[in-house]
Amino acid sequence: MNRFITFEGGEGCGKSTVLKAIKERLEAEGVSVVLTREPGGTPIAEQIRNVILDKGNTAMDARTEALLYAASRRQHLVEKIWPALKEGKTVLCDRYLDSSLAYQGGARGLGVDEVLSINLFATEGTYPDLTLLFDLEPEKGLARIAANQNREVNRLDLEKLDFHHQVRNNFLALAKRYPERYVIIDASKTLPEVIEEAYRAIKERE
Amino acid sequence: MNRFITFEGGEGCGKSTVLKAIKERLEAEGVSVVLTREPGGTPIAEQIRNVILDKGNTAMDARTEALLYAASRRQHLVEKIWPALKEGKTVLCDRYLDSSLAYQGGARGLGVDEVLSINLFATEGTYPDLTLLFDLEPEKGLARIAANQNREVNRLDLEKLDFHHQVRNNFLALAKRYPERYVIIDASKTLPEVIEEAYRAIKERE
Repeated sequence: MNRFITFEGGEGCGKSTVLKAIKERLEAEGVSVVLTREPGGTPIAEQIRNVILDKGNTAMDARTEALLYAASRRQHLVEKIWPALKEGKTVLCDRYLDSSLAYQGGARGLGVDEVLSINLFATEGTYPDLTLLFDLEPEKGLARIAANQNREVNRLDLEKLDFHHQVRNNFLALAKRYPERYVIIDASKTLPEVIEEAYRAIKERE
Repeated sequence: MNRFITFEGGEGCGKSTVLKAIKERLEAEGVSVVLTREPGGTPIAEQIRNVILDKGNTAMDARTEALLYAASRRQHLVEKIWPALKEGKTVLCDRYLDSSLAYQGGARGLGVDEVLSINLFATEGTYPDLTLLFDLEPEKGLARIAANQNREVNRLDLEKLDFHHQVRNNFLALAKRYPERYVIIDASKTLPEVIEEAYRAIKERE
């Protein structure tokens, strides 16, 4: 059964770890799963991502950044997500459209509807079937990142705390705007609890 | 006096050569001129441009390409065009917004209004004060490129002839849509004649 499920949330919310656990659990049940995240190993999207995350690119304008995310998303969708859904697979995607709405649209002040419009151009209206929002206080998320030696700190991590609070509020506002596809997961719980909650949300919405 | 003048047209129409001649002539009159073209030497726009023109990127989707052009345009505008106009300079720009409308919007079939919408996001509505369209039959333009040993042939040059005919027709349609800023120059004339015609168009519209 082809389903497009996205995992969203702020920095250090644990969604990537949960994603891997969910993948294993679904596969153990015989579900054909594709785990991905932008740029998804597609060389063009990868090149675009390198431009976005280059720490030297401090002169990058917020609108340039939003357009680059939309471009990377488009290529990932065309080369990876659409083909997988067409083959009947379940796609679990670490961040998608909503991250651009929360980060660029909200926290960078470009406007959610303006950023949505360039993303509708990019996605031709492909929304996820289900979006799991891993909600966590930014202070806790950033502390987790600082404690994790294996995770490289990138340009976004270095933004001020206020920015991350805005991101969180924007995600919660998106959950209200799109209740039909959003489930909020309390990411402050223990990892096994968060995995269980995410798993149940996916099963209940089948 | 700050003016934003763009030079548009198909491959091999001679606009870049004319642009340099116009710059010298205006400067001889004491006008402060900035000659530029995307990515305009801005490192971020340059990196984006490299992704677009990489001959290896044959899997690039047309919408990805349009978003990347809009991103490069944004950065060029913010870092180079707006500051120059603010300093009271005349900006002569080799290709801009209209190239995306003619190439991606028209010839690649994405729709002129759809491509315009992402470009309005990128430019916040900064249109040129004057657009010179160097109109030429594609056969003549491509023959010029083939004859010119100093000009590297890029991915766009290699498109089929029909594509270039569509681009020409799209530019002519844009000239009808925006008569207040468009002047059509017959680029099949001799170089001195074309330069003279372009120069007069700029002077008459001051």
